[in-house]
Amino acid sequence: MGCDMRDVLNMVKSGEMSVDDALRHMKKAPFEDIGYAKVDLHRGLRQGTAEIIYGAGKTPEQFIGIADVMLKNEQKTVLITRLANDAAAEISEKLELSYFEQAKIGIIGQMPEKDGNGRILVATGGTSDIPVAEEAAVTAEALGNEVFRLYDAGVAGLHRLLAHMDEIMSASVIIAVAGMEGALPSVIGGISDCPVIAVPTSVGYGASFGGVSALLSMLNSCAAGVAAVNIDNGFGAGFLASRINHMEVKR
Amino acid sequence: MGCDMRDVLNMVKSGEMSVDDALRHMKKAPFEDIGYAKVDLHRGLRQGTAEIIYGAGKTPEQFIGIADVMLKNEQKTVLITRLANDAAAEISEKLELSYFEQAKIGIIGQMPEKDGNGRILVATGGTSDIPVAEEAAVTAEALGNEVFRLYDAGVAGLHRLLAHMDEIMSASVIIAVAGMEGALPSVIGGISDCPVIAVPTSVGYGASFGGVSALLSMLNSCAAGVAAVNIDNGFGAGFLASRINHMEVKR
Amino acid sequence: MGCDMRDVLNMVKSGEMSVDDALRHMKKAPFEDIGYAKVDLHRGLRQGTAEIIYGAGKTPEQFIGIADVMLKNEQKTVLITRLANDAAAEISEKLELSYFEQAKIGIIGQMPEKDGNGRILVATGGTSDIPVAEEAAVTAEALGNEVFRLYDAGVAGLHRLLAHMDEIMSASVIIAVAGMEGALPSVIGGISDCPVIAVPTSVGYGASFGGVSALLSMLNSCAAGVAAVNIDNGFGAGFLASRINHMEVKR
Amino acid sequence: MGCDMRDVLNMVKSGEMSVDDALRHMKKAPFEDIGYAKVDLHRGLRQGTAEIIYGAGKTPEQFIGIADVMLKNEQKTVLITRLANDAAAEISEKLELSYFEQAKIGIIGQMPEKDGNGRILVATGGTSDIPVAEEAAVTAEALGNEVFRLYDAGVAGLHRLLAHMDEIMSASVIIAVAGMEGALPSVIGGISDCPVIAVPTSVGYGASFGGVSALLSMLNSCAAGVAAVNIDNGFGAGFLASRINHMEVKR
Amino acid sequence: MGCDMRDVLNMVKSGEMSVDDALRHMKKAPFEDIGYAKVDLHRGLRQGTAEIIYGAGKTPEQFIGIADVMLKNEQKTVLITRLANDAAAEISEKLELSYFEQAKIGIIGQMPEKDGNGRILVATGGTSDIPVAEEAAVTAEALGNEVFRLYDAGVAGLHRLLAHMDEIMSASVIIAVAGMEGALPSVIGGISDCPVIAVPTSVGYGASFGGVSALLSMLNSCAAGVAAVNIDNGFGAGFLASRINHMEVKR
Amino acid sequence: MGCDMRDVLNMVKSGEMSVDDALRHMKKAPFEDIGYAKVDLHRGLRQGTAEIIYGAGKTPEQFIGIADVMLKNEQKTVLITRLANDAAAEISEKLELSYFEQAKIGIIGQMPEKDGNGRILVATGGTSDIPVAEEAAVTAEALGNEVFRLYDAGVAGLHRLLAHMDEIMSASVIIAVAGMEGALPSVIGGISDCPVIAVPTSVGYGASFGGVSALLSMLNSCAAGVAAVNIDNGFGAGFLASRINHMEVKR
Amino acid sequence: MGCDMRDVLNMVKSGEMSVDDALRHMKKAPFEDIGYAKVDLHRGLRQGTAEIIYGAGKTPEQFIGIADVMLKNEQKTVLITRLANDAAAEISEKLELSYFEQAKIGIIGQMPEKDGNGRILVATGGTSDIPVAEEAAVTAEALGNEVFRLYDAGVAGLHRLLAHMDEIMSASVIIAVAGMEGALPSVIGGISDCPVIAVPTSVGYGASFGGVSALLSMLNSCAAGVAAVNIDNGFGAGFLASRINHMEVKR
Amino acid sequence: MGCDMRDVLNMVKSGEMSVDDALRHMKKAPFEDIGYAKVDLHRGLRQGTAEIIYGAGKTPEQFIGIADVMLKNEQKTVLITRLANDAAAEISEKLELSYFEQAKIGIIGQMPEKDGNGRILVATGGTSDIPVAEEAAVTAEALGNEVFRLYDAGVAGLHRLLAHMDEIMSASVIIAVAGMEGALPSVIGGISDCPVIAVPTSVGYGASFGGVSALLSMLNSCAAGVAAVNIDNGFGAGFLASRINHMEVKR
Repeated sequence: MGCDMRDVLNMVKSGEMSVDDALRHMKKAPFEDIGYAKVDLHRGLRQGTAEIIYGAGKTPEQFIGIADVMLKNEQKTVLITRLANDAAAEISEKLELSYFEQAKIGIIGQMPEKDGNGRILVATGGTSDIPVAEEAAVTAEALGNEVFRLYDAGVAGLHRLLAHMDEIMSASVIIAVAGMEGALPSVIGGISDCPVIAVPTSVGYGASFGGVSALLSMLNSCAAGVAAVNIDNGFGAGFLASRINHMEVKR
Repeated sequence: MGCDMRDVLNMVKSGEMSVDDALRHMKKAPFEDIGYAKVDLHRGLRQGTAEIIYGAGKTPEQFIGIADVMLKNEQKTVLITRLANDAAAEISEKLELSYFEQAKIGIIGQMPEKDGNGRILVATGGTSDIPVAEEAAVTAEALGNEVFRLYDAGVAGLHRLLAHMDEIMSASVIIAVAGMEGALPSVIGGISDCPVIAVPTSVGYGASFGGVSALLSMLNSCAAGVAAVNIDNGFGAGFLASRINHMEVKR
Repeated sequence: MGCDMRDVLNMVKSGEMSVDDALRHMKKAPFEDIGYAKVDLHRGLRQGTAEIIYGAGKTPEQFIGIADVMLKNEQKTVLITRLANDAAAEISEKLELSYFEQAKIGIIGQMPEKDGNGRILVATGGTSDIPVAEEAAVTAEALGNEVFRLYDAGVAGLHRLLAHMDEIMSASVIIAVAGMEGALPSVIGGISDCPVIAVPTSVGYGASFGGVSALLSMLNSCAAGVAAVNIDNGFGAGFLASRINHMEVKR
Repeated sequence: MGCDMRDVLNMVKSGEMSVDDALRHMKKAPFEDIGYAKVDLHRGLRQGTAEIIYGAGKTPEQFIGIADVMLKNEQKTVLITRLANDAAAEISEKLELSYFEQAKIGIIGQMPEKDGNGRILVATGGTSDIPVAEEAAVTAEALGNEVFRLYDAGVAGLHRLLAHMDEIMSASVIIAVAGMEGALPSVIGGISDCPVIAVPTSVGYGASFGGVSALLSMLNSCAAGVAAVNIDNGFGAGFLASRINHMEVKR
Repeated sequence: MGCDMRDVLNMVKSGEMSVDDALRHMKKAPFEDIGYAKVDLHRGLRQGTAEIIYGAGKTPEQFIGIADVMLKNEQKTVLITRLANDAAAEISEKLELSYFEQAKIGIIGQMPEKDGNGRILVATGGTSDIPVAEEAAVTAEALGNEVFRLYDAGVAGLHRLLAHMDEIMSASVIIAVAGMEGALPSVIGGISDCPVIAVPTSVGYGASFGGVSALLSMLNSCAAGVAAVNIDNGFGAGFLASRINHMEVKR
Repeated sequence: MGCDMRDVLNMVKSGEMSVDDALRHMKKAPFEDIGYAKVDLHRGLRQGTAEIIYGAGKTPEQFIGIADVMLKNEQKTVLITRLANDAAAEISEKLELSYFEQAKIGIIGQMPEKDGNGRILVATGGTSDIPVAEEAAVTAEALGNEVFRLYDAGVAGLHRLLAHMDEIMSASVIIAVAGMEGALPSVIGGISDCPVIAVPTSVGYGASFGGVSALLSMLNSCAAGVAAVNIDNGFGAGFLASRINHMEVKR
Repeated sequence: MGCDMRDVLNMVKSGEMSVDDALRHMKKAPFEDIGYAKVDLHRGLRQGTAEIIYGAGKTPEQFIGIADVMLKNEQKTVLITRLANDAAAEISEKLELSYFEQAKIGIIGQMPEKDGNGRILVATGGTSDIPVAEEAAVTAEALGNEVFRLYDAGVAGLHRLLAHMDEIMSASVIIAVAGMEGALPSVIGGISDCPVIAVPTSVGYGASFGGVSALLSMLNSCAAGVAAVNIDNGFGAGFLASRINHMEVKR
Repeated sequence: MGCDMRDVLNMVKSGEMSVDDALRHMKKAPFEDIGYAKVDLHRGLRQGTAEIIYGAGKTPEQFIGIADVMLKNEQKTVLITRLANDAAAEISEKLELSYFEQAKIGIIGQMPEKDGNGRILVATGGTSDIPVAEEAAVTAEALGNEVFRLYDAGVAGLHRLLAHMDEIMSASVIIAVAGMEGALPSVIGGISDCPVIAVPTSVGYGASFGGVSALLSMLNSCAAGVAAVNIDNGFGAGFLASRINHMEVKR
């Protein structure tokens, strides 16, 4: 915004642009309005590599419409989250779509090359947590990260976790996904020295309260270096992990 | 109650007791009423070795009064929970009292011999959990159990826990005390094969909500063989552990 | 884990095993990975008699696959919890399965002999609590315990409970299952002198909040010797009761 | 209000009162405004025998001022709830006040005669519930009821409760006061056939959540014939019990 | 229980009954066990006029079986709550059943005569609260009470309520049913002088939290003389109102 | 009510009306009772322009019946909220109905002219909030207001919001609709100087708790001049905005 | 911001301002930084008449410092909320301060003239709600509004409310303040036709949960035209009421 | 742990170490037990630069004892969190301590050089959030990071935030600290492209529920790239930010 504004001001100064045009220009938002959505064309630049469509509550037609505008504006990768099987099937008839069923993610366009600083480890406590973990893992991959999956390694079976000590120690970011008592991030946070993103899942019953138990555990983690995202928010964890993994490194 | 009733009925049958006397007898509760409390004299028989006085909200005079009745009725050990320092000091002037400051427990009379089936292990996640753990440990000792303490062995420092694998594996009952994310019982439950009593503590701040976070973790433990008592209820855990440890064993 | 490690170290010392092999061995987890699950082959040794499969969210094919691996590894009893009727029917076509419909438990293999220290009593407050109670009872039976059922004996009809005083007094462990106000464990805890495992159920409506009311009652029980498991967690209660009922003298 | 209005209308009709006077009259509320409170002078007629002042947050001067207006308006009994010791002492210097310390109730004027239909039984689960029970009992007495107190009769010691079966069976209304798991009203509701008013107390700690556990238990009571008032609301229970106990035949 | 026990004791004394028979007799609960339920045959005597079956979760066959036992034991009125339309239709083929569709109540046998002390008023805030109100009203009618219905008289339209001042003032018990903000009982409690039973309903959305908002309002009512039952518990309110309305009155 | 009463009193004075008639008149509520509802005929006068029917839980026949009475009583606009598609279709066969599908609002009769003081701006954070926003917008239009819609302008894309600074600054009332973190009203409240009505929506998942997260944000807004309505209560916001926008000078 | 920007752009165009100066100007926030606070000098223009200092947690020195800057920048009225008695006393020694003790508000400078469209009515349910009501009332007065106070007019004493029907009907905005069950806004909303701002207070105990009960009631109000602010937020209500009351009116 | 184990195994192989010694070595935890704490001497290596002492609930003597062990083991920087003023004063008499009063942090030893990848920006919504922000900032500085503070830049005053666009855009990690509605991280997350760590604070009143409102907002942030730590957990945020800022390239 800063630089754009300078350009505009310079054009006003030079007379290339009238004051009213400048005002109009500054108000013109960098998005295209296609009725049911304002497609944000500069977000790619401002926020990351791939453009993301939050899929819940949208129709296949809308996905196609939004993706069209994006592709026309030279967006190389479009990632659709929370995409149901049948919607994916409908889109596939119009556009080339890679569909990741467990993750409920569809990807239009090509996968980016893996250019992060290191490898992101995605771990789960149980098998029921895998869909959320896959949402995180595929998101991270679509944003240019190498991902290592370590599933079903819950704290009630410590030896499984300890068996992968090397992968844990060598990761640059760890995404720890767990429902029920949500202790995985604490245990991992205690043995690793990289940032840990905790993802509570709604897996459980009774006093798990749809993920609240796991969420509270993660927020109260006695291991430092842990932060949490919303319940079942695999996408958010993958996105944040990618940002961390793409940090500009001096050394 | 069953046997008592049979005796009464036999006396009615033999004419030793009138019907009205029998009715009166059956209604006469086995406790002594000293105004501010009904001292339950048969509870020792019905529930355990030592008689327990829940101390919160009672005055030193009341403690002494209740203990007097108990001791007169041949109760050997009287355990007072949640006993404040100054109340303990006042009682000490009248009765011989052993006071355990961290546990806030006072014991009048002699400590019973250790006659349980095995050893009770009391573990804590952090140092702040120790008062609750001590309440559990001293309770268990006052009820005739050998106790092993393993404090400050939280899941964020797994190696500390693993360093005491032997004590964990050889315990007959484990009391796992933890605040914050309350993951200790799950981790211990995963590596031991004895009953685990989980005690959430109110240690923590913010989203620990006074122990709710730890409590939920414990109720949602993915390790089987774990049950929880109320937040900060060290006494309840020690009492239950003692019952388990005194179970009549066939083999 | 301790002993295994000693064996490995001895073999390293004697030259029977190279350092690298030892390291590899120690990292090799004692489970078989069959894609959708890591089948834990040593858990039988570490945790109990029967192997347990948590059934929620698994397909009949997965059950059969996991059970196959287990049976091949000489597991005698495999217990599947939360197994739906139709999944049970499908499995029955491939493997010999005893299906307990109310408990939603399927058992592959033979039932173990009843070798506990005493009898486990499973009581419920109402008829709607029976499915959870059956989950507890069948689990306990599959783990080698004799079980006595005392259903529909809620506190609003005390005489029903008192009519079974003998069974209550003679139990070695009691599992008290109740929804709504969840007072059963307190009442039973007051008249028995064995460990009481309280199981809140989601039976009720309105301010029962899916079992929270019963859970809180149980955690706040004024009877000592009571601990609670998660809402509707009949399995957990049966498993813990079995552990208590199989306690050995470790002196 | 109905009858008053008819009188006014008749006076308007007969010319004894102008329309404007009538309007003014109807708007003139039947209370006296003394600055810090509107003293409701007709409430005695509309709601019960004694006038009640909710004491929390008022100064001794205000109590005296309000009571003065009431007494001048021929109110025979004035009941002040939640009255602290020192405020009671100050009032006593100006007005004749009977102060009930446990109940934190002060009564100015004479106690009414006991003219209810039967006897109100006030029972508590433990000794810590007694202050709330006393608030209920003294309120009921100040409203003209005979009260029988049955304290420390919690469900974990059923025999104490059963020892007073006669008093329970013969009460016209029962107020059951309990903290912690709050099971008393259910147990009493199951053995009596009169209305039971349940009063949860904030007695307890941890997961009692300041009385929420007891409140939920009472709302979920499996015994019919039970309704609950707010946590620690002894006054409300005593007031309602008095209303029930003073019911008239209206056929 | 008292009297029965005396009879038994007298028979023991006179030799008409052996001690063992007496014990057996006392343990024999006054209910018939028909497998899926323990039909309580003395509850009619102990608790009220009609016998009640809580309908949720029972099959038509079970209803018929239970009702059969009851009718054979000379129960004149059997009331089934929470009875679905189709279950009612099935029962109607076997037994004479009056079905109240809004109330979801079925009644087998004859309606009792109205023998209460006065009239019960059932009021609702809105039209959506009517099913719960009907459950209360029909329950009260089946227990021998005259009922006056005053529906859709919420506090946002005060004039509707004031239009029925006479009915409010002349009721012997009032059941005030309301969802959303649940203010009706407070307003009614302020203008009537009889006991008010407040029934919160789950009517509402968003921050009504399934009736919690209304429940809290009712518990916090600034009008004295109000007590609350569980959310949507029309039956409980009708039952309690009947008990109050059938109180033995001295005057 | 005040004026009506004066008329009645004058007629009583003049003898035109008997006292009993006057009383009857005053009790006669200004509504027509059509069985399933009391149609409030004076509410138009008392509360606003259009008459509103809360649609949830009513049948098409009931809508038609209520609307009939209203139209006969010269109500020009009848607004039905929460009207499902198929109910709308059924009504359309009998009455001329404009149906707004996103808003789930049906309007019978003519739309009023726009006679408010200014323009109401309805803004949403995301596209999923649009149905609630439309309920607000159509309600406001049906009550005679000009509405400007600014959708999908959430705080995570500030530039979109800033692009419409003029519309924000010139609105007379703003309705800010948002789910998830609900920050929109705070941001808008910080840059505008008109009343802001915040509407939390149930859009979100996990820790949004069905709109609770957004609701709390709005109640805690650090921008002054903001008040909130219930979760998803677009109607209430539109109604209140209209009242504000139709304010008159009353000096 | 719009107009300012145009001025800047015009100056750039005319050469009066360099591009760099323009950028610097646009970034220069319209506030003065005095270390412990950024005093917002343009907010008066942007948001209302008086400048407001939120007092909680500030020292008298800070108040004086902030007020100094404001007064120097020609702010006529400075309003300090949540100002404790002793802090007020300290400030009074340095600056002329009017202190409103119940409202905990201090005002530096002169009170503005009353230039609103009409009168704001501030009503409370009980006497304990008065401090919050006074915060609202004094805030409104300091922002140039005429205020009418109607205190202690709760719904349990409807006649008090009805006695002030005229004031309710003639208000331009109503602030309804209530704790406990919080029904006042619903009742007032049902009889008035102006915007109602509901203020829940933390008055109450037990299940009032510090104002949550009242807040929920207000959010669920069945009266349309009501919106709520945070618990005890009298200031917010007064501020919003003033905005509404100062709306530019066409007629 | 991996490498250590290899060394040990090699020594066993070579005969340098007996099997029993190896076992003993592996069990010997890398910490020193000083009674009231187990000082973890390897954590510096495993987790970060400075050693951290969580100060809450420790005595000055304990701080000094722990710090002594650490310094003796060549720990250069020891950071004590939640250190009260007077405890700090006491420690200062024995050891050289830099005390940061707002942050409640004490630092023993020298501050490390700033060797992170970039600059950490710490922003707050209001002035009351500053203590938590300072805990984060000083923690980050003590762990070797350059920190830029941007305080009192809440979303209700957007222009203040926009005035520091450059600092926001150039940060490598952002810590956004906010109480009340907690919208700051969402707004910042929308305009920056680096990882954002959200810290809810307990600043606020009423429905802020001690920080829950802010916490929920942050978890539900519509801006991707945001994760949250516990309420008031400035230390955790600073620690995690440092880990991110010290990320290395691991390819």
